[in-house]
Amino acid sequence: LWLYRWYYSDLCQGTLNFAIYLILSLAFIETPSSLSRTADVRYRSPPWEPPCGLTESVEVLCLLVFVADLSTKGYLFGRAHFQKNLWLLAYLGVLIVSLVDWTVSVSLLCREPLRVRRLLRPFFLLQNSSMMKKTLKCIRWSLPQMASVGLLLAIHLCFFTMFGMLLFAGEKDDGQNRERMTYFRNLPDALTSLLVLLTTANNPDVMIPAYSRNRAYAIFFIVFTLIGSLFLMNLLTAIIYSRFRGYLMQSLQTSLFRRRLGTRAAYEVLSSMSGKGEASPQGVGVKPQNLLHVLRKVQLNSFHKQALIEKVCSYGDVPLSASEFQRIFNELDKTVVKEHPARPEYQSPFLQSAQFLFGHYYFDYLGNFIALGNLVSICVFLVLDADVLPGDRDDFILGILNCIFILYYVLEMLLKVFALGLRGYLSYPSNVFDGLLTTVLLVLEISTLAVYRFPHPGWRPQMQGLLSLWDMVRLLNMLIVFRFLRIIPNMKPMAVVASTVLGLIQNMRAFGGILVVVYYVFAIIGINLFRGIIVAPPGNGSLAPANGSAPCGSFEQLEYWANNFDDFAAALITLWNVMVVNNWQVFLDAYRRYSGPWSKIYFVSWWLVSSVIWVNLFLALMLENFLHKWDPQSHLQSLAGTEE
Amino acid sequence: LWLYRWYYSDLCQGTLNFAIYLILSLAFIETPSSLSRTADVRYRSPPWEPPCGLTESVEVLCLLVFVADLSTKGYLFGRAHFQKNLWLLAYLGVLIVSLVDWTVSVSLLCREPLRVRRLLRPFFLLQNSSMMKKTLKCIRWSLPQMASVGLLLAIHLCFFTMFGMLLFAGEKDDGQNRERMTYFRNLPDALTSLLVLLTTANNPDVMIPAYSRNRAYAIFFIVFTLIGSLFLMNLLTAIIYSRFRGYLMQSLQTSLFRRRLGTRAAYEVLSSMSGKGEASPQGVGVKPQNLLHVLRKVQLNSFHKQALIEKVCSYGDVPLSASEFQRIFNELDKTVVKEHPARPEYQSPFLQSAQFLFGHYYFDYLGNFIALGNLVSICVFLVLDADVLPGDRDDFILGILNCIFILYYVLEMLLKVFALGLRGYLSYPSNVFDGLLTTVLLVLEISTLAVYRFPHPGWRPQMQGLLSLWDMVRLLNMLIVFRFLRIIPNMKPMAVVASTVLGLIQNMRAFGGILVVVYYVFAIIGINLFRGIIVAPPGNGSLAPANGSAPCGSFEQLEYWANNFDDFAAALITLWNVMVVNNWQVFLDAYRRYSGPWSKIYFVSWWLVSSVIWVNLFLALMLENFLHKWDPQSHLQSLAGTEE
Repeated sequence: LWLYRWYYSDLCQGTLNFAIYLILSLAFIETPSSLSRTADVRYRSPPWEPPCGLTESVEVLCLLVFVADLSTKGYLFGRAHFQKNLWLLAYLGVLIVSLVDWTVSVSLLCREPLRVRRLLRPFFLLQNSSMMKKTLKCIRWSLPQMASVGLLLAIHLCFFTMFGMLLFAGEKDDGQNRERMTYFRNLPDALTSLLVLLTTANNPDVMIPAYSRNRAYAIFFIVFTLIGSLFLMNLLTAIIYSRFRGYLMQSLQTSLFRRRLGTRAAYEVLSSMSGKGEASPQGVGVKPQNLLHVLRKVQLNSFHKQALIEKVCSYGDVPLSASEFQRIFNELDKTVVKEHPARPEYQSPFLQSAQFLFGHYYFDYLGNFIALGNLVSICVFLVLDADVLPGDRDDFILGILNCIFILYYVLEMLLKVFALGLRGYLSYPSNVFDGLLTTVLLVLEISTLAVYRFPHPGWRPQMQGLLSLWDMVRLLNMLIVFRFLRIIPNMKPMAVVASTVLGLIQNMRAFGGILVVVYYVFAIIGINLFRGIIVAPPGNGSLAPANGSAPCGSFEQLEYWANNFDDFAAALITLWNVMVVNNWQVFLDAYRRYSGPWSKIYFVSWWLVSSVIWVNLFLALMLENFLHKWDPQSHLQSLAGTEE
Repeated sequence: LWLYRWYYSDLCQGTLNFAIYLILSLAFIETPSSLSRTADVRYRSPPWEPPCGLTESVEVLCLLVFVADLSTKGYLFGRAHFQKNLWLLAYLGVLIVSLVDWTVSVSLLCREPLRVRRLLRPFFLLQNSSMMKKTLKCIRWSLPQMASVGLLLAIHLCFFTMFGMLLFAGEKDDGQNRERMTYFRNLPDALTSLLVLLTTANNPDVMIPAYSRNRAYAIFFIVFTLIGSLFLMNLLTAIIYSRFRGYLMQSLQTSLFRRRLGTRAAYEVLSSMSGKGEASPQGVGVKPQNLLHVLRKVQLNSFHKQALIEKVCSYGDVPLSASEFQRIFNELDKTVVKEHPARPEYQSPFLQSAQFLFGHYYFDYLGNFIALGNLVSICVFLVLDADVLPGDRDDFILGILNCIFILYYVLEMLLKVFALGLRGYLSYPSNVFDGLLTTVLLVLEISTLAVYRFPHPGWRPQMQGLLSLWDMVRLLNMLIVFRFLRIIPNMKPMAVVASTVLGLIQNMRAFGGILVVVYYVFAIIGINLFRGIIVAPPGNGSLAPANGSAPCGSFEQLEYWANNFDDFAAALITLWNVMVVNNWQVFLDAYRRYSGPWSKIYFVSWWLVSSVIWVNLFLALMLENFLHKWDPQSHLQSLAGTEE
């Protein structure tokens, strides 16, 4: 049992999580390292190459942690259970493959052509989270239906491709001919054009040549988009949502059920213990002192623990029945109501009235008002400065204003500390945020003054580095906006929306994890396939755009040079751009030219996985959370309905 | 009562609907008439102008129909009810305004500058459908919450705009400077850039200049898109869905409730009638013969009527209790199971076996197989012909093949008619479709042969008109695809999907109506605002692209000339293109240049109404329908739950 406790302690799990993130982040500094300032092939400096053995030694440490983790798990689960658990077996397999691959790569002095273990790394993240495993299972369940909609989509696509090719096959007039030459040249071209139209990424362009000749051709494209994009794509969303809806409900239900079962089991154990000792004179039940004894040993939130102990004490010496026992643990569901420490008490009546004044919430309003003024001043200066060349700007007034605002914030902080006491001040999270911001602003402002001296007319801090100190002050000042977020809970519909957002973030972890896994795998595959394929244009790499010859809308003309697969960070951004779907026909076309027609398969499958499946999953999660927040009683009702 | 019956008869409602569609479709031929072949300002011929008085006389006829409709409704509703009903009062108002406007325009000989009544026309469509009114009410209810998300979006947008302007304000390096000059020049420009980025329509472009200089700038754009497009936009979807979900459920519920109430009322009336006559010897109840008497008078589907009468007859002479009465009408919910007429009986054993052979469903399969072969042959020839110039194609083999396939279809049709009898053949809708297709194909093929004579090597039908006869044959042949739709119900997941689609189409009418209204109003406003603003380029209108000077990605370079507001049909297509959202920054930019900065308001509001609200509504409808089909029992359960 101590091993079990030790394994699930914070320290152990923390080490494991840290190892997982460490091994995942290795991809940024491994051989095609991302430590250059830009990913643009024209301006890129040769990247820093880590010496052989640096990343490998970090990696082997992580792998050893995983080996320890696996052996502990295996010991805890027992041999028979272990062999039945597919995830654990896969874990074992992945570890073995990784270690073998690692030894190969060390013995070849890091010159091996392919690293299999990089592809397998996300598996560690996947197997460590039960939520992710559940989500994966749910996705697997909904695959058949998605496949059926996919089939419909494919039929739709093929039919319209054939139809379009017939329609634009003629050589009668110019518009039809240009349409044919541009978008319906041959079967693969026509298929790609319509697939891209399905994502609406080339919407008006694809119909322009034909539509310019005759209005009626527009109907073909509109019907295609209506059926494909609006109808079938939304059907896919509906399917994913309908599957996913049941799934979240189920997981809620099982967690509720498990807790009840656990409480009941604890009750049975405790009652049998007390029964043994005293031969149960007043019926079966748990003696409160036993419960207290156990409670003090258990790890719990301190607030919950205190509430539980109080509740138990209120029962005195009477043994508890099962339902009473259950009811006590319902306390756990209640949210924490934090108490703020008492205000310091001052003797002098003047100090007391001042305390009342500055502790009042009108004082908060005044602070917000001043912050609004600050924001407005920044905006006004931005708008005024927009038309002036950066060299001619005069930041004198803004500098003075900034000083005044920062002084006010400091004053406000000090007064609040005085009114509420230091601990009272820190007990409000909003105050902590304000105080932190004020302190940072003060430090920055003082250093600005030290560097550039006091503002005078014509004063303009020099720019240096990515962001000058002075710009930093202005950016931080923008963070004042977050003070206004505090007003949100006071408005009814805003409050619902905001609480949904907060709830969503908690549920997001599993999805974020799956997204990380998918991005990771695709980025690694992309690097292996397309590394170094995009080459810089033959010009001398000067800043003058040398793209006069490239046709409009091509990869070269749009200067998408930075969207390549030459290192991990660049691959991530490229994948993001394809996931957002807009203009992805440019990527399709460029990679077809640079690397061959089969690259399309990679991009289309990435589109399917990310944009179609993941975005829809995200939407489903959102809907589910929102409906749950919106009318929880009807949801709980249906929960109860399925429980019966 | 007779007036009521007459008013709700098919003829009357049909006239009303016809008048509505007629008055709506007038927009196509009214003064900026859409009867030109293309909407492209470069190639457009001067449109046909209808003589003054033609559309006006049609219009006044429709208006008179509406006046009659309104007076009947007013009479039926009664004066007191009429004054309380806002819709009817608005109807009256709209009619009066339209008639006044009409007289003005006739007295000015159709030269008036503005026609108010055009804007008001969609109101007739709106007020005639109770579903649309309900949907509108539902949209109005969800406005507060949508406004709160909108506020969040606006805050998000403003904050990032400020942040972006600060970030790109410097003149330090080239990338930052180009970013500033292109997308963050001044406040309106920066706002527009980010608003467009919210719809992801300028996704990779907007970040390219900055990202090429430094990787870190990409984070700004990715965070913005993540929060804005994925998070807040989906939140909007969730809100609309959550409001809309309750609404459809409620409308289902009320329709169920109304029917029950109606049945119950009918029961009460009938039982009191029979009670009066006979002083109710065996308790209160409805005598079956009374019911039969009533049933025969009522308009009903003949199948339902027969089932009801049979059911009633089975009760014999015993009076019916309320619950029995209710149960009888449940028959109405059952779907129609159509019986096919018996096959003709032949005497000769040979004919009988032939009948068995051709009536068997394997024969259908054979037909499908042949149709598949037809499709494949068309596709193969398309792919082969794609690389050949249209002038050099040899359609000899295809022509021969086509003849054979058409002959087979004719043979199949005749054999089926022989096996099933003519009435039996027509009782399957799929057969009707096949037969129709075959007949049309036969006629076309014969006329093709008559025009071009019999195929010989090197045979190639001439092209003439929009589609030559020969192309028409090939297009029609493509319709063979629909034969395969029949296979769908045999596959389980496909069947669910297909039935959702069918159910959706029934529910679509209200939404389609609202879409028509919105498109109509915006198109008319757009015509009034932007008519004639896009002028053709100064070139001689030749076919050579004279856009070498226009920068890439501009309206002129992309040749979007056809997307204007010069007539109604062109306006519809332009609005569609903006609704699909891709590349809409091009429209924003072009109309800003041609017409002034305020045109942005029109496009942004159209984007909000169509793309944000309507598309989300559509998605909500889809989800609701699908979930309803998917697990109807849980839905009904929650229905019952709210009913209690």
